[in-house]
Amino acid sequence: MPSWIDGQPLEWLSVKDRGLAYGDGLFETVAVRAGSPVLLDRHLARLGEGCARLLIDLDLALVRAELLAFSRELGDGVAKLIVTRGDGLRGYAPPQPAVPRRILQGGAKPAYPAGNAALGVRLFPCATRLAEQPLLAGIKHLNRLEQVLARAEWQDAEHAEGLMLDASGRVIEGVYSNLFLLKGGVLLTPDLARCGVAGVMRAELLAQAERQGLPCQVGDIALEALLQADEVFLCNSLYGVWPVRALQRHQWSVGPLTRKLQVIARDLLDS
Amino acid sequence: MPSWIDGQPLEWLSVKDRGLAYGDGLFETVAVRAGSPVLLDRHLARLGEGCARLLIDLDLALVRAELLAFSRELGDGVAKLIVTRGDGLRGYAPPQPAVPRRILQGGAKPAYPAGNAALGVRLFPCATRLAEQPLLAGIKHLNRLEQVLARAEWQDAEHAEGLMLDASGRVIEGVYSNLFLLKGGVLLTPDLARCGVAGVMRAELLAQAERQGLPCQVGDIALEALLQADEVFLCNSLYGVWPVRALQRHQWSVGPLTRKLQVIARDLLDS
Repeated sequence: MPSWIDGQPLEWLSVKDRGLAYGDGLFETVAVRAGSPVLLDRHLARLGEGCARLLIDLDLALVRAELLAFSRELGDGVAKLIVTRGDGLRGYAPPQPAVPRRILQGGAKPAYPAGNAALGVRLFPCATRLAEQPLLAGIKHLNRLEQVLARAEWQDAEHAEGLMLDASGRVIEGVYSNLFLLKGGVLLTPDLARCGVAGVMRAELLAQAERQGLPCQVGDIALEALLQADEVFLCNSLYGVWPVRALQRHQWSVGPLTRKLQVIARDLLDS
Repeated sequence: MPSWIDGQPLEWLSVKDRGLAYGDGLFETVAVRAGSPVLLDRHLARLGEGCARLLIDLDLALVRAELLAFSRELGDGVAKLIVTRGDGLRGYAPPQPAVPRRILQGGAKPAYPAGNAALGVRLFPCATRLAEQPLLAGIKHLNRLEQVLARAEWQDAEHAEGLMLDASGRVIEGVYSNLFLLKGGVLLTPDLARCGVAGVMRAELLAQAERQGLPCQVGDIALEALLQADEVFLCNSLYGVWPVRALQRHQWSVGPLTRKLQVIARDLLDS
């Protein structure tokens, strides 16, 4: 699988990189189909927002060109892009000027069990809570220990994803997915202003639902509201949409809106 | 300056390392004097606590041996140790088994302005707040974007350190230091159960103060209590103790306890 650093085929990077030292950077995980990156504009928009928040001066036009060239080489699979603030000396102060580093890694199309999309998944109730940090919420930065700890809570294959709440007990997201629910004909997804990652598939599905005249709300969601939802589903930029069928003893059936949005996501992701 | 990876002289690291991908690891910044690491047992104890929390199965005896050998090669300066969960495939799930990676980087003894220790420092009031995450509090993990953002808030040389509060407004620490205050003959330092890094110099000074019969308290500290303190000082494992003389328009004078603990730290750090 190809690996590029700053546009060159390389698999090794300096131990001085601030991505390693402090998680000082951002990433995007991009589905690649028939040599093209899927939802490229949305990935670049989120990356740009992350760079603005972290004060990383990245050449987004260059990143776009590299992602396009890398995807042509990859064909079908996953392109993982990591952007760091580049090398640094000791100490937290960002170097002036910093020279951001671009790292691209290719991977195979992930092989999820077919039942996840067809029948829906069971959520593991993660005890790891998301801390509330508005300065880092929404962006896909490299400080991911909360997700690592949450994902380490279960090993069985019965649970395809885990449910993460914030410190106040609000429903936020899956460990590597965003979450939606349908209640009384309204599509709801958690507000990610305090924590969580604002996924590109989440943004795409919200835009598509609004275009079709479906009432959409982004707001706080209590666990009780999740349990009372008519439909619940997860999404991300690699697998599209998975219905949620169970959380512990609670069960949901797979509904028509979930299936409709699943088809939209599948159309984007099928090559 | 020397750089070792897993005991071998190397400056390059696999792009698959989970320290880069997720900040999935820990670090220690160790003062080295005359070929010996200072406060080695305390550094290893904190590293061990971090590994237990992050479920990283590290051979601490091997790390101790490497730190000793690396320090002999370095002579005088700073040894920065990074421990990561090692290489991973895509996805947050820790690989089973994981093979932790040990990275050592040598650096020169930092050249801080002499006035910091002699006259005291001015604190920058950081707007960046520390999120409350008990699962990660106290340990020195690699998820340090809060410190990067806080340190980027000022560039002038007038402020040697910044004051960080938690989301609820409690006084927690400096960006790269711990904080103590003296009030009514009692030595106080913030409780780090919700956020913050429990520094090895902080632990050493607490132990020394208790040994000398000084009443010590670890607890919540309001900004108002800081302003009303008789003495305020910072510490870390590289510079020892710096008196704090100002925060915005508020001023403190440098007191005798600060000087006494400063001598203790200097004795540890002077070769």
